[in-house]
Amino acid sequence: MSHLITNQAKLVARVRRIRGQVEAIETALRQERECAAMLQMIAACRGAIDGLMSEVIEGYIRMHVIDPSHKPTPAQLAAAQELIDVLKSYMK
Amino acid sequence: MSHLITNQAKLVARVRRIRGQVEAIETALRQERECAAMLQMIAACRGAIDGLMSEVIEGYIRMHVIDPSHKPTPAQLAAAQELIDVLKSYMK
Amino acid sequence: MSHLITNQAKLVARVRRIRGQVEAIETALRQERECAAMLQMIAACRGAIDGLMSEVIEGYIRMHVIDPSHKPTPAQLAAAQELIDVLKSYMK
Amino acid sequence: MSHLITNQAKLVARVRRIRGQVEAIETALRQERECAAMLQMIAACRGAIDGLMSEVIEGYIRMHVIDPSHKPTPAQLAAAQELIDVLKSYMK
Repeated sequence: MSHLITNQAKLVARVRRIRGQVEAIETALRQERECAAMLQMIAACRGAIDGLMSEVIEGYIRMHVIDPSHKPTPAQLAAAQELIDVLKSYMK
Repeated sequence: MSHLITNQAKLVARVRRIRGQVEAIETALRQERECAAMLQMIAACRGAIDGLMSEVIEGYIRMHVIDPSHKPTPAQLAAAQELIDVLKSYMK
Repeated sequence: MSHLITNQAKLVARVRRIRGQVEAIETALRQERECAAMLQMIAACRGAIDGLMSEVIEGYIRMHVIDPSHKPTPAQLAAAQELIDVLKSYMK
Repeated sequence: MSHLITNQAKLVARVRRIRGQVEAIETALRQERECAAMLQMIAACRGAIDGLMSEVIEGYIRMHVIDPSHKPTPAQLAAAQELIDVLKSYMK
């Protein structure tokens, strides 16, 4: 079973926003909009993908690498938190 | 006028593939698919966005930063190519 | 105790190569070397840092997030491997 | 001749700080310091490399891709600025 169920609605909303961003890029492209605006839109979309990745990875670490039913030690939980924090700043 | 017109059809096809990838992520999420598969799908989507960004930036440099109608010098053209190559390897 | 001890010699060698790359960048800068060469050197150095990060994170997941003495389940070990693989391709 | 001369002293100082960061990572590794601290140090070093890359690329665009002696048009200068801004946010 997936760790994603817990906050599935939130993640679906996030993915939909990304889809909206990709559709806006397509529209801008068809309308031959300003190239500079396009660059900004693509950069924003990539930031949103990184944010999604970061959130899914966080859940994956907490629910699958750490198995909450397997009585993780406090040291493991602290290590998981450190890893999540570093990955967030690294993926930004 | 936009540098994007030249290869607009190719870029639109690329953006549509990305939209397809985002839709597949949404479907996988709703179906509570394997988290690991989800991570791979998001990583692939991000790679595709980077590829798109890279291509749009390349055209932007060649058509707007360098202005082909403004008689760029060979040194400018060489510098533009170097920049494009470095950005491609950096964004990978 | 650190997971880094295991392959400490290998990691030290890797960090030293990075130091060598940074020193080469400084030298190139002082000698007013070609800017394009400089861009390539910095890009290569960043790739090496990403490689180091990837390796340290891998050990961190295997030794601290997963605690080998805490009898990790096969599912946890598989999840850790998936995470490592995805992070490697993401950080590239 | 290099665009790097202009602000060479500033760039050298920046590269030296990065060298200091790499040396600190090596020391921490030898002393078998906390892995979590190591991860943070590597992440910080990578951020500093990105900052350096960003600065060198900015100068490269302004001085080589745009050639100030070749009477760039206002549109070219604006495009160069847009590109620099987008790359900065993309490389972060």
